[in-house]
Amino acid sequence: MRQSLLFTKTRKESPKDEVSKNADLLIRAGFIRKEMAGVYTYLPLGLRVLNKIMNIIRDEMDKIGGQELLMTSLQNKETWEKTGRWSDDVIDVWFKTSLLHGGEVGLANTHEEAITDLLTDYVASYKDLPIAAYQFQTKFRNEPRAKSGILRTREFIMKDMYSFSIDEANFREFYEKAADAYANVFNRVGIGEKTYRTFASGGSFSKFSDEFQTECEAGEDIIYIDNESGQAINKEIYTDELLDELKLKKEDMRETKAIEVGNIFPLGTRFSEPLKLVYKDEEGKEVPVYMGSYGIGPGRVMGTIAEVLSDEKGLVWPATVAPYQVHLVRLGDEPQVTEIADEFYDLLTSNGIEVLYDDRDLRPGEKFNDSDLIGVPIRLVVSAKTIAAGEYELVDRQNGKTFGVSESALVDEIKKRC
Amino acid sequence: MRQSLLFTKTRKESPKDEVSKNADLLIRAGFIRKEMAGVYTYLPLGLRVLNKIMNIIRDEMDKIGGQELLMTSLQNKETWEKTGRWSDDVIDVWFKTSLLHGGEVGLANTHEEAITDLLTDYVASYKDLPIAAYQFQTKFRNEPRAKSGILRTREFIMKDMYSFSIDEANFREFYEKAADAYANVFNRVGIGEKTYRTFASGGSFSKFSDEFQTECEAGEDIIYIDNESGQAINKEIYTDELLDELKLKKEDMRETKAIEVGNIFPLGTRFSEPLKLVYKDEEGKEVPVYMGSYGIGPGRVMGTIAEVLSDEKGLVWPATVAPYQVHLVRLGDEPQVTEIADEFYDLLTSNGIEVLYDDRDLRPGEKFNDSDLIGVPIRLVVSAKTIAAGEYELVDRQNGKTFGVSESALVDEIKKRC
Repeated sequence: MRQSLLFTKTRKESPKDEVSKNADLLIRAGFIRKEMAGVYTYLPLGLRVLNKIMNIIRDEMDKIGGQELLMTSLQNKETWEKTGRWSDDVIDVWFKTSLLHGGEVGLANTHEEAITDLLTDYVASYKDLPIAAYQFQTKFRNEPRAKSGILRTREFIMKDMYSFSIDEANFREFYEKAADAYANVFNRVGIGEKTYRTFASGGSFSKFSDEFQTECEAGEDIIYIDNESGQAINKEIYTDELLDELKLKKEDMRETKAIEVGNIFPLGTRFSEPLKLVYKDEEGKEVPVYMGSYGIGPGRVMGTIAEVLSDEKGLVWPATVAPYQVHLVRLGDEPQVTEIADEFYDLLTSNGIEVLYDDRDLRPGEKFNDSDLIGVPIRLVVSAKTIAAGEYELVDRQNGKTFGVSESALVDEIKKRC
Repeated sequence: MRQSLLFTKTRKESPKDEVSKNADLLIRAGFIRKEMAGVYTYLPLGLRVLNKIMNIIRDEMDKIGGQELLMTSLQNKETWEKTGRWSDDVIDVWFKTSLLHGGEVGLANTHEEAITDLLTDYVASYKDLPIAAYQFQTKFRNEPRAKSGILRTREFIMKDMYSFSIDEANFREFYEKAADAYANVFNRVGIGEKTYRTFASGGSFSKFSDEFQTECEAGEDIIYIDNESGQAINKEIYTDELLDELKLKKEDMRETKAIEVGNIFPLGTRFSEPLKLVYKDEEGKEVPVYMGSYGIGPGRVMGTIAEVLSDEKGLVWPATVAPYQVHLVRLGDEPQVTEIADEFYDLLTSNGIEVLYDDRDLRPGEKFNDSDLIGVPIRLVVSAKTIAAGEYELVDRQNGKTFGVSESALVDEIKKRC
């Protein structure tokens, strides 16, 4: 993409109405735009990151047998009444609206009811199980506080997967596979080292659930980590009894703030019973399906990366989720410089490398500031000086290290680093 | 995908609450599920088709310089009040809801207001134009009638593109490019021959707009086509004066029902003026931006394909949008048959061919009926008989023609046909 054509621009000033670092950086760099509190547009650069995160999640869900579908935002009142969750007293973040010909409908804040009701059409026998189904679909949550940028919003895409098993043992087997897939996701998007599988409350559904918590000052949660084993516990269930149960010592536990980037949840028969999702076992007896749910918000993951991997100059994207792999920065507009920079742009893109090409007529300082703010992993500078030297400079955005590379080695060198 | 693992199943009976052919076929084949009138879930097979249609559209929009973003469903009342379109008397299909801390918000039924307001952040000078930006985002429309399956729904993904030009001449240049891109989309998804660029009313925005209308009995529109030139006119503006203007003769015009699968629309300064999207021209004078909008509903396209390309046995997908390219049907469960069918499944998938593998233990008649209903372009049968013959049967779903092919020629023969 030629930057001269990109319709967004960076801005120097922080937005006045944002207190979160992720929103500040992402807005200044032109990745997102605030429409109202907790409601953000993903601009072209931001959408590229979001899509890369979603594709990594999709890949991991497919690997454990997840089947992708797309449910609806508009939700039937009747279905939610059967599980007792239609009332605003039970779910306090509902957005509701009405049909023209009468009748209330909800905007999905989650999809347990919808998927359970849907599967009653397809599950009859134990032979139809297990099933794992997932989607990327917008959730609407009427958040009273929405001051954390894209970490907590009123409208966001969620990857939610649901598992359906004949019993708890079969469920547990899948649950552990899902936990591994989640760990893979966080490793692949670059926050694995700071992310802990964390014991958390199972709410009304089960004794425990597991959260994936990324250590970060901007987090809303407090967790305790045992550095040696990597085990972590959410403060809400942090008791002496649990520490004993897990054979952890209080003095080894480190308290830290963290962002919940994902969670996995045993649901048991909480939804299958009221919605009559049952199967016939080998004796022909009807048994309610044993369920689990598994959520990741790709936008929250993106916001977390912005929080934990950025530096004082701006965003720092891991190559796996960066909007582009290379930021080609042309300095000066002499014909020879333009010609060679254009040539490199064609060379790299034709080799399947994603390039943001700063072909704008701006001063070097402005270009470098923009480049640091946007945070593409590798910067390649083309100027009269580098052409004369016959060696081009690659700069690693993460650590600032520079590497001289000849024209002939350019593609290989970049591919090695992506 | 092994069909034994696919969680959806086909059904023999038509759904009782559907009157449209597309919904009947798509529900029976397991592509969609009805959640309420005008609200459908896309099941795994259906989502694959929808994604392929979206990817074709994306490719064509990118080719004409469209930049993809993702705007929000929740809409600011204030922005829509400025254009006079917040009132239910002006837009009669609004869904509205409220924030917990007070204040009404709308669910986007279209995004002209949102994109115009957004671009006020990025457009300052004539040098910033032209811009074309598009998204795939859910629209919510409170339709009073929703009886046409996925042709007209209350919630649907729309590809909406908006163009921003310095003046009408520049706008027209892009508009014709977009019209060509639209024609390419309909050709690529297999309905080009039945789809006509059609003069239609410009509503309150301009004298004319252009609709892309696909000839079909299920259509809600009536158009008149001049077979020789391919020109078409929507009934709503079909007058003797217009025929004269276009040098068309009434006696040459054929009346037909049609589905509006896309439309492109001059907007002029209808939105840029009230929302103050202006640029400074070369003399420094402020001028409102000249806009256009360009819409396709991928779900409606999918429904149209289901309407016009299906036959009495079921769906017939063009290879470009089919959920899978090959339906591998194993007949019998003798070890040798299973072994060779498994082998073919691995062979084809490892060659990048998308295969639905019917590995279920069902009678041949049931399998063939399912296969016809689902409508994958090529069927490959593996049975004791075909193994003995050393020649495998490829069946073309569209015309029923069969081709014998040896194992060694299988991959090449299939790739040639996809």
